Amino acid sequence: IQAGDVATLSEILNDWPGADTAALVEDLLPEERLTVLRVLALRKRVDAFEHLSMDLQVQLLAAFTNEEAAEILNNMAPDDRTALLDELPHADKDRMLTLLTPAERAVAEALLDYGTDTVGRLMTPDFLEVKQEWTVKRVLDHVRTHGRDSETLNHVYVTDAAGVLLDDLRIREVLLAPLHAHVSDIMDKQFVSLSVTDDRREAVEVFRKYDRTALPVIDGRGVLVGIVTHDDVIDIAEEEATKDQQLFGGVEALDESYRATPTLTLIKKRATWLVVLFLGELLTASAMAWFDDEIAKAVVLTLFIPLIISSGGNSGSQAATLLIRALAVREVSLSEWFWVFRRELISGLVLGLILGTIGFLRIALWSTFTDLYGPHWLLVGLTVSISLVGIVLWGTISGAMLPFILKRLGLDPATSSAPFVATLVDVTGLILYFTVASVLLRGTLL
Amino acid sequence: IQAGDVATLSEILNDWPGADTAALVEDLLPEERLTVLRVLALRKRVDAFEHLSMDLQVQLLAAFTNEEAAEILNNMAPDDRTALLDELPHADKDRMLTLLTPAERAVAEALLDYGTDTVGRLMTPDFLEVKQEWTVKRVLDHVRTHGRDSETLNHVYVTDAAGVLLDDLRIREVLLAPLHAHVSDIMDKQFVSLSVTDDRREAVEVFRKYDRTALPVIDGRGVLVGIVTHDDVIDIAEEEATKDQQLFGGVEALDESYRATPTLTLIKKRATWLVVLFLGELLTASAMAWFDDEIAKAVVLTLFIPLIISSGGNSGSQAATLLIRALAVREVSLSEWFWVFRRELISGLVLGLILGTIGFLRIALWSTFTDLYGPHWLLVGLTVSISLVGIVLWGTISGAMLPFILKRLGLDPATSSAPFVATLVDVTGLILYFTVASVLLRGTLL
Repeated sequence: IQAGDVATLSEILNDWPGADTAALVEDLLPEERLTVLRVLALRKRVDAFEHLSMDLQVQLLAAFTNEEAAEILNNMAPDDRTALLDELPHADKDRMLTLLTPAERAVAEALLDYGTDTVGRLMTPDFLEVKQEWTVKRVLDHVRTHGRDSETLNHVYVTDAAGVLLDDLRIREVLLAPLHAHVSDIMDKQFVSLSVTDDRREAVEVFRKYDRTALPVIDGRGVLVGIVTHDDVIDIAEEEATKDQQLFGGVEALDESYRATPTLTLIKKRATWLVVLFLGELLTASAMAWFDDEIAKAVVLTLFIPLIISSGGNSGSQAATLLIRALAVREVSLSEWFWVFRRELISGLVLGLILGTIGFLRIALWSTFTDLYGPHWLLVGLTVSISLVGIVLWGTISGAMLPFILKRLGLDPATSSAPFVATLVDVTGLILYFTVASVLLRGTLL
Repeated sequence: IQAGDVATLSEILNDWPGADTAALVEDLLPEERLTVLRVLALRKRVDAFEHLSMDLQVQLLAAFTNEEAAEILNNMAPDDRTALLDELPHADKDRMLTLLTPAERAVAEALLDYGTDTVGRLMTPDFLEVKQEWTVKRVLDHVRTHGRDSETLNHVYVTDAAGVLLDDLRIREVLLAPLHAHVSDIMDKQFVSLSVTDDRREAVEVFRKYDRTALPVIDGRGVLVGIVTHDDVIDIAEEEATKDQQLFGGVEALDESYRATPTLTLIKKRATWLVVLFLGELLTASAMAWFDDEIAKAVVLTLFIPLIISSGGNSGSQAATLLIRALAVREVSLSEWFWVFRRELISGLVLGLILGTIGFLRIALWSTFTDLYGPHWLLVGLTVSISLVGIVLWGTISGAMLPFILKRLGLDPATSSAPFVATLVDVTGLILYFTVASVLLRGTLL
């Protein structure tokens, strides 16, 4: 590249798979990127371009001449093009659309009309249609002559005269059938399809359930309008998992990768939740101020505050994790909340008893050798361990139920993040602890 | 089913896709499940069985007669069979192996010999091999006659006489080529392959990068020994994401689903980490005992303890989430720790200043109207806000660096869970808070 030996570079790179060229381009300096892409044959160039990260695609599109941009955009797979156009500011998107040929522009505009996060945005309209009365030989001939543009040849789709989907045939069925058989002989009329208006998470579920490499997409009248391929779905599944994990960690979901997000945006996305949680935690100061008489009389009680509230937060975080994930992979449904409630009630109680016992033993042990916890250590120990049972139980139940409540309200269950549950449990935990203390220690320490 | 109308049931169900029959079987009573499976034709029965959850497969295998079990096991895809046999107790696994035909047993034993979590365990040895000198027509004829058992017909593999992999051809290339062309004409000798000993997470990465529906697996000598298909990889990607999320939530990864895990196991998996974290948190009680003089003199300081330690925990949880995910999807590599460190240093400082300012304003505001925080509220406010800056900074940096340290040590970065980071920050946060207090408040409150 540095030597500027374009001929050699062209020879080498035109033999590489697009994904590898893309990986190379990602590692280059901005000016070298254009050089590399320009030596590639059009088909290779488009292939490599489609494998680049979205941010880099946007950058390069701005660096291209209009002719170069037009060449790339007209030859990209329609689904990848939709995703790219969607990332552009409104004015740029419109300008790019004018670069397209009328036919490609019609396709692009139709796809952009579907709502964000719908299956319509993921699909490509390049697929192979065959008719019931054709022979297997005719299908293979048709594939040979018309298949070049189709995103996948793993499936062909049988439609009637109106374009209504009748069946999907795996190319496997076609390849294994005698050449003289008819399409109608190998059809089973059993097919799984997505609707253009389905949510894209739904597509992930259907792909997982049926082990397909591509699924047909139909409109309201049953007409085949496109296909969604598995590679797009792997990406979606990963994006959704990232978003859930970020929410759960108490960060607003980043729209781009950690690397590509500017530091200022990164700080803003984190500050929002952090401030909300901080305002929530300010209530702990108010709760404690409420009990300041008790605190002044029995300073020993304050030693266990971090221990108690963090145990509630940890058990809540555990329960929330388990149920957010179980809801996300549809292992548990909303209506089963009561079954989960009872199960977590038992779990919370047992876990609380375990921690309560350890806490009591520790206080008892220390008090045998020191007088750190004063003459009433037995009562202090009881207060701490009873509070632990209560807080772990409460943390577990709130952590388990919050995802259900959020889902019921139409919010993402992953919003019930570890920090969110912890904050909720902190305030209530303090009130519980001091209430138990004021009952048990009245007349002795208080 | 209840009417016992076996003929009708058989007619209906033999037309269903395996995944739907499997979904039906999951919802039935145990005794009905056997009835349903028994009316299915062998191929449908095996297909439905492979789509059942692992737990149910194990249960049903025990309920089958030996003949039924043998029929299913001999006809399952070798990769699904490996996964099932792996779930059985040792004695049962050996008994099931004896039910297999000698040929299938050899295959099953070979696959079980590969280490857990390797690509070898995921692969199936049923694939189509072709030779360089064949014509496209001969390839298609070969597929038609020998393809029935191959798990995918989307790829055929070109090998030499010794079985060494020379190229993988997408069936697309074969279908688009003229019938008289030779395999050597359409080969590009560019192929991506996995090694039997690769980690299965590696397989997820390679599939994602190259958009394939199947990848060839070679042994140390380059000989093609099997293929891995995309459906197995979608499952792995999901399992790994679940495991990461559970670890991050502070739960030991469940081996089975939330639903299938017995309550006692569920409690055990949670208790381990909860107790470890609790023992860590006990250090907070020791840290506070160390400062008990200060606490007794300035009870007002205790009011802000939950606020301060939770802010450290929350910011640590955010940073850990972002970096665990960035490491998991290979967006950031181990060697870039210093770049991350500087970035998080800035983020932590800004976030700390934001929270510190809010905290100070709140104390100043309350002190204007009440004397809750005493005459030295200005110094108390300063102590709290300086501690907040320090703790948020410390939480952010530990949360960001811990995943790197764990990965460097060969552990799963997701182990640096929200609760784990929070616990770490709690102890150090308390020490920081009281140290700042003893410097700022010496001579006034202390």
